[in-house]
Amino acid sequence: MINFDYQNPTRVVFGKGTIPQAGQLVKEHGGSRVLVHFGGGSIKANGVYDGVKKSLLAAGLEVVDLGGVKPNPRLSLVREGIKLCREKKIDFILAVGGGSVIDSAKAIGVGVPYEGDVWDFYTGTAVPTKCLPVATVLTIAAAGSETSWSSVITNDDGAYKRPLDVKVIYPVFSILDPETTYSLPDYQTACGIADMFVHVVERYFTTVKNVELTDRFCEAVMKTIINNARRVLDNPKDYDARAEIMWCGSLAHNNLAGTGRVGDFASHMIEHELSGFNDVAHGAGLAVIVPNWMKYVYKHDLARFVQFAVRVFNIEENFHNPEETALLGIKALRDFYTSIGMPATLKEIGIEEKDFNAIAEKVKKFDTAKGTVGNFKLLVNSDIVEILKLAK
Amino acid sequence: MINFDYQNPTRVVFGKGTIPQAGQLVKEHGGSRVLVHFGGGSIKANGVYDGVKKSLLAAGLEVVDLGGVKPNPRLSLVREGIKLCREKKIDFILAVGGGSVIDSAKAIGVGVPYEGDVWDFYTGTAVPTKCLPVATVLTIAAAGSETSWSSVITNDDGAYKRPLDVKVIYPVFSILDPETTYSLPDYQTACGIADMFVHVVERYFTTVKNVELTDRFCEAVMKTIINNARRVLDNPKDYDARAEIMWCGSLAHNNLAGTGRVGDFASHMIEHELSGFNDVAHGAGLAVIVPNWMKYVYKHDLARFVQFAVRVFNIEENFHNPEETALLGIKALRDFYTSIGMPATLKEIGIEEKDFNAIAEKVKKFDTAKGTVGNFKLLVNSDIVEILKLAK
Repeated sequence: MINFDYQNPTRVVFGKGTIPQAGQLVKEHGGSRVLVHFGGGSIKANGVYDGVKKSLLAAGLEVVDLGGVKPNPRLSLVREGIKLCREKKIDFILAVGGGSVIDSAKAIGVGVPYEGDVWDFYTGTAVPTKCLPVATVLTIAAAGSETSWSSVITNDDGAYKRPLDVKVIYPVFSILDPETTYSLPDYQTACGIADMFVHVVERYFTTVKNVELTDRFCEAVMKTIINNARRVLDNPKDYDARAEIMWCGSLAHNNLAGTGRVGDFASHMIEHELSGFNDVAHGAGLAVIVPNWMKYVYKHDLARFVQFAVRVFNIEENFHNPEETALLGIKALRDFYTSIGMPATLKEIGIEEKDFNAIAEKVKKFDTAKGTVGNFKLLVNSDIVEILKLAK
Repeated sequence: MINFDYQNPTRVVFGKGTIPQAGQLVKEHGGSRVLVHFGGGSIKANGVYDGVKKSLLAAGLEVVDLGGVKPNPRLSLVREGIKLCREKKIDFILAVGGGSVIDSAKAIGVGVPYEGDVWDFYTGTAVPTKCLPVATVLTIAAAGSETSWSSVITNDDGAYKRPLDVKVIYPVFSILDPETTYSLPDYQTACGIADMFVHVVERYFTTVKNVELTDRFCEAVMKTIINNARRVLDNPKDYDARAEIMWCGSLAHNNLAGTGRVGDFASHMIEHELSGFNDVAHGAGLAVIVPNWMKYVYKHDLARFVQFAVRVFNIEENFHNPEETALLGIKALRDFYTSIGMPATLKEIGIEEKDFNAIAEKVKKFDTAKGTVGNFKLLVNSDIVEILKLAK
């Protein structure tokens, strides 16, 4: 285990019927003029928007709307939001939606008190030290942004997708009502499941030794996702299964699973450029990339892949042939993704071999001098292209 | 899963060599005149006291000492601490030690800004709304008080031991350096292990259905405790095992394991009165009580006890005789406690049958009208006496 400094201050208000608490919670956390940030029409169709609005107005708060967040949220709308917040003297941002809406709200939150261009924070040119308080009403279990310090924004200019990880953007509170996810299309539910699973995978595959508790915590989250994925797809109104999936989505990405270890995150960086390239859903892109990333890197620590197979997918270990066990684990993940309707190939999501080099070039490198991404195994552009070829 | 409102704001600074950060962390969190609260001489013998003191003084802080906290911390010293803080205009309390020291510091923290008697908070006569900031340098992995909202104090007058659970007493930060635990006597290490294990047991045995993620999280913590208990006792300077045990101690009691479910806590309430009665170490008392509590209540939800046996102790399930499997799980816990040197009977810890009724009478009842304690199965005084008889 390596040293760590962990704090997750987000307050989670979880369960059915919790949305009417929104107004009171905003007030408790110091808000008076609130930007309500959201995406398309789904929260208007399912009543969540009305419920939130009613609660805010009943609490005597001033409210300004900003809708229109798209999946892979755009920098242009973030800039519009920053301008709007300044004009209206907004002191609190309430994101109502999924990860894209929350990430966009966080970007607006750090942009408002900053004199420069908010994109500086995403290119690493500057580090935010202040943020308007951001809170969330979650309606999609997926990104984990509701309890994370992460925000990922796509720059319309060149379609680069870049992450920001910083303490000041932890939401002050998040309302998680599993019933808000009843009306999601199956494909979106499945994309969310694919995404949250990979948030754990990225932390699980580490080169740090002696990390038993966090290994087992990761396995707990992955097993629970697998067991409940089938249930929510079979019966979208299974409250208990929706609740398990929703809490998994948060705990997959609230950093607890990463304490004392170094995560990988190469698959995320590769997928970001797929989404940046043709707007594929993040979870679908991950479902294509991750099993192929695994095939490419598993020999780097065979024992860890055997552990994954045995503990997460209950594969009976072949003690005489650990490689077989490891590969059965990777196949089980592939089969799991297929079983929930996720694509298996880049072709299915409209990405062709002629684009592989351009995508590899764009991937954000952790070590810019050496041009590498990931930590479990350091990947250079040629490795990324090989992974994309396995996935084609 | 039931609705919940969860927040744990404590910042955890974890790992070897982290104690020199103490002074800077106190400053960052607003402290200037610091009460350093501790127990006996062990932190002076192992260098922790000197390291903390050096760091605080290097950061330019004013420091006032208050040592002498005993296991099962006393109300009399809390009162002395409150008086001292007021006299010296203390604005920050740094607890250096284990759960007793931290619990005492939290009690002082809520007592200073309160006009009445601090014991009011422990009898439930009043609820604290303010607390001096409390932080910790942990030196015993056990109570989990370093990231919990709990404090347990013993009233010298009549030896009542009472808990307080309230958000304002979460530590603002906690420094966890596993090396500080190298010098603990084996018996104290084992008592800590027994205690943290029961913090999970108390949450695991719930009547709430459909709590898969938190079940698996509880199992992750319990399995990690079991696997590393042997290692730290075989080799007290095994850093990795000490680190696992230390992080388990915090996560066992930081309330995450209890989200969406109702814990039991009857065993804790019964044990508190054993400790109050003759100052037995809390962990040792729990090691005696819990397996016998299990024997008394297992029929109330046999399936949950089968799950405990299979998942936590890897007992092979007898599908034709689930009761046998459940009882093997309880026996495995008893054997685990014995293997780490914990007592198995009340006789070993100096408690006799003639005292059983008096102890049962003293146990804090959750429902004072009905006189019951616990949630998994509601226990009245006669049930408590039966459990004590099983344990005699």
